[in-house]
Amino acid sequence: MLEPVLVAGGWRDAVEPVGELRAHDPSTGEAIGPAYPVSGGREVEDAVAAAVAVAEALAATDPRRIAAFLDAYAEGIEAQADRLAALAHLETGLALAPRLRDVELPRTTGQLRQAARAVREHSWTQPVIDTASGLRAMFGPLGKPVVVFGPNNFPFAFNAVAGSDFASAIAARNPVIAKVHPLHPGTSLALARIAHESLLSVGLPAATVQMLYRTEHDAASLLVGQACIGGVGFTGGRAGGLALKAQADAAGVPFYGEMSSINPVFLLEGALSARGDALALEFFNSCTLGSGQFCTNPGLVVVPSTDAGDAFVAAAAAHFDAAPAQVLFSEDGRRHLVAAIDTLRVAGAQRLAGGDIPARAGYRIQPMLLQVEGASFLADATALQTEAFGPVSLLVRSTGAEQSLAIARAFEGSLTATVYRAADGSDDEVAAALLPPLRMRAGRIVFDRMPTGVAVSPAMNHGGPYPATSHPGFSSVGMPGTIRRFAALHSYDNVPQALLPPALRDANPDGIWRQVDGRWQAGDVGAGA
Amino acid sequence: MLEPVLVAGGWRDAVEPVGELRAHDPSTGEAIGPAYPVSGGREVEDAVAAAVAVAEALAATDPRRIAAFLDAYAEGIEAQADRLAALAHLETGLALAPRLRDVELPRTTGQLRQAARAVREHSWTQPVIDTASGLRAMFGPLGKPVVVFGPNNFPFAFNAVAGSDFASAIAARNPVIAKVHPLHPGTSLALARIAHESLLSVGLPAATVQMLYRTEHDAASLLVGQACIGGVGFTGGRAGGLALKAQADAAGVPFYGEMSSINPVFLLEGALSARGDALALEFFNSCTLGSGQFCTNPGLVVVPSTDAGDAFVAAAAAHFDAAPAQVLFSEDGRRHLVAAIDTLRVAGAQRLAGGDIPARAGYRIQPMLLQVEGASFLADATALQTEAFGPVSLLVRSTGAEQSLAIARAFEGSLTATVYRAADGSDDEVAAALLPPLRMRAGRIVFDRMPTGVAVSPAMNHGGPYPATSHPGFSSVGMPGTIRRFAALHSYDNVPQALLPPALRDANPDGIWRQVDGRWQAGDVGAGA
Repeated sequence: MLEPVLVAGGWRDAVEPVGELRAHDPSTGEAIGPAYPVSGGREVEDAVAAAVAVAEALAATDPRRIAAFLDAYAEGIEAQADRLAALAHLETGLALAPRLRDVELPRTTGQLRQAARAVREHSWTQPVIDTASGLRAMFGPLGKPVVVFGPNNFPFAFNAVAGSDFASAIAARNPVIAKVHPLHPGTSLALARIAHESLLSVGLPAATVQMLYRTEHDAASLLVGQACIGGVGFTGGRAGGLALKAQADAAGVPFYGEMSSINPVFLLEGALSARGDALALEFFNSCTLGSGQFCTNPGLVVVPSTDAGDAFVAAAAAHFDAAPAQVLFSEDGRRHLVAAIDTLRVAGAQRLAGGDIPARAGYRIQPMLLQVEGASFLADATALQTEAFGPVSLLVRSTGAEQSLAIARAFEGSLTATVYRAADGSDDEVAAALLPPLRMRAGRIVFDRMPTGVAVSPAMNHGGPYPATSHPGFSSVGMPGTIRRFAALHSYDNVPQALLPPALRDANPDGIWRQVDGRWQAGDVGAGA
Repeated sequence: MLEPVLVAGGWRDAVEPVGELRAHDPSTGEAIGPAYPVSGGREVEDAVAAAVAVAEALAATDPRRIAAFLDAYAEGIEAQADRLAALAHLETGLALAPRLRDVELPRTTGQLRQAARAVREHSWTQPVIDTASGLRAMFGPLGKPVVVFGPNNFPFAFNAVAGSDFASAIAARNPVIAKVHPLHPGTSLALARIAHESLLSVGLPAATVQMLYRTEHDAASLLVGQACIGGVGFTGGRAGGLALKAQADAAGVPFYGEMSSINPVFLLEGALSARGDALALEFFNSCTLGSGQFCTNPGLVVVPSTDAGDAFVAAAAAHFDAAPAQVLFSEDGRRHLVAAIDTLRVAGAQRLAGGDIPARAGYRIQPMLLQVEGASFLADATALQTEAFGPVSLLVRSTGAEQSLAIARAFEGSLTATVYRAADGSDDEVAAALLPPLRMRAGRIVFDRMPTGVAVSPAMNHGGPYPATSHPGFSSVGMPGTIRRFAALHSYDNVPQALLPPALRDANPDGIWRQVDGRWQAGDVGAGA
């Protein structure tokens, strides 16, 4: 008996499933819970057809109904918060509290509510009115389904059926086909049930949200490689992301993939002299948060070859050496991590501390610190940027500002780049020199805090240059910008007032922020600011 | 002796050219002017290396210098307007006046100046400040070269070294490698000379702008298929666009292609009854403007099978029958157009009027009108949407509102969709029903005027769903939005004021419009609107 899928407006038994899967307790490696279907082409075709069938009507829906759904969904999740957090803890091994119950789940409901607010305020649509030419424009729905692929590491906040991509695609009034991560199927099923009930409660088409656990390879190409698909949101590993991207690209489907990042950190001399011990602990805590399974994990730290640098390294190594083994999501994940560590070591990185793999059951590894000289890094920078997804970081020892700059210029695209500086400004000349090369290689420049914190803010960029993501102009966190990934630009040329969408008419009773003749204002056209 | 290329900061003889090309007078078919080199891989490598070498410095340049360049370039073009227009007329066969001298050239300098204004006002950067989280974000340079491919049909306004893509990429402080269209090499050379002088006059790096006439196939892949390229702007045909897109996609390079469009027009019954004869002339003029070689040419017109519809068709057919042959850009262009007409006829379209190909020299064809019944269109909608790039249009006769809606739902993505309605509102119910399906299939919805007019406005969308373009969220006309295609999202997390870009600091002496804590304002942070 397999658990149901959410397809074509309701829960149903999988049609022609091609396999089954189960969740595992990462701390023991044992299978837990019921079995879930792996979907084949027939099921995917049904889901795509159902989503296409509702897309036009959904695009024409009153946005307030969309906002009501997002709010109802957030409320429904909160009502089951304890149960959901317990389920996610079982399936992922992530800490029940504070991580799942007190941080990630509230973040998730917060994102849904921010999406609802963006819908009510129309902030994602950025209306532009040019009275002289008679042209008016705004962002609007794609009018096509959006497919979301969720990652293993955030069972709530990036879940394909509840997370940021989901909320963004729905906010833009597109139907969503969620391909959740098969490592937490029970959590995803529970979330999808709440989503489905919330849809029905507000009267949106039931096929607005659909959910599959896993698809066979050929079926995945039906999900992303057809022109009837409006867009794809993907969070996960680089190999899988690029394979899907190639299929989407070939069909002209915009693909937003968040795929990999080493998140370099520069510790400048003044900062190390003033607070090296504190930084060692801060770094260790960030690197091991969630067993290091963060897209923004500080995977590479540039440390000067000075006394202060040596002291930092010794302090950090002590933390890693003293750390117990941590639980990863899966045996596959551990195997990939060990392979990445091997790649780094073959390329010249030395083990400094940690890295033991205990004999006991479960997907465990001890946090690990590696080190390489700056010159060696520069000699094989590609291999030494191999992402080690887990509680592992590589220290790169720099001989000085000039070498640090060369190291910065050798980085490929990352989500973040971080600089720690002395509070007295004594590092600022070096910091200013590092900024231009780092700026073009990272989506977010962070100062004096670790990159693992990703605030849900309109000024966040959880994105960055390829290969960190597939497009440097978009973030996957932070309303309302995230919504525009799943939007089309809609221009109206000489269209009568009555046939314009309300947000573009002269009258502006809802006080929407609009750019009118070059000026942002919230009043009626002709009424000034 | 071959004309020089603009590579690596100066004019030089082509390095290892792999062939040569000449312009032709389309009205006679005779080769005119000097010979120009076809560039091979070595030259492209030089250009890419030179652009990469200046990208970081250019990104850090004071925006006012960029604006000064754009203004100086516009002024330089105006100073040679008569000569440039005469050259372009010779190479393209487009009318010297008003088209080239009085419309397209001023539009081009207007675009450059709008880009300069957008740079000075920072309007393209959309700064967002979130004081609670300490996060600030804006759009900024890619820090990598942008490659622009220009089309045959706008020797100024879309020229790779002077047009909208060029101005947009430069405004975002990216170096540009311009691959101009080989049908107007002399015009492009003259423009590039002015661009180069303008660069030197304002003190920008000389390699900020480079220009090639044509590249061999393998060399083109070096231009777009490398991760060191920041983005690609392409305007041209679908086959060439998709081939370049595939190479860019594989390297993770954002590709903005404007590739094809049939621009459907719906003439509603009330409009035809009230002003059918006037509409017939308006349609004929739009369809034959620039010999129909417009991306926004009305290539398909839905006309009701009523008396008013018949009268319109008769009037339109008379215009086409009476029209003299028009000059196309090239023999290749005429061959493609004839092949497209054949495809339409094989699929069931009947010739109504025009279409003669005169025996005299030059690339001529008489404007042509085709017709097909609505049911026949629906039976083979893909073939009957074949783009016929020239003064050719297909009338689709609809049996009523229901069939018109089905026809609308059969369209693939276009740049525009147009509806003509009665001024008294009697068509508005039908118009309102057509809007949802048309909205998701076109970038710009036009009412009561032909789509060929493309105003350079911030509310323009000269873009649309695939396959009209490669991304539904962007326009290739209309500052400042066009600039964001060639921009990266830059977030700053806890960065000290002195190390922030000026546009994101608390103080806002230039009065830049910024979204501060959800509110658009032009004042300092903390000072309110």
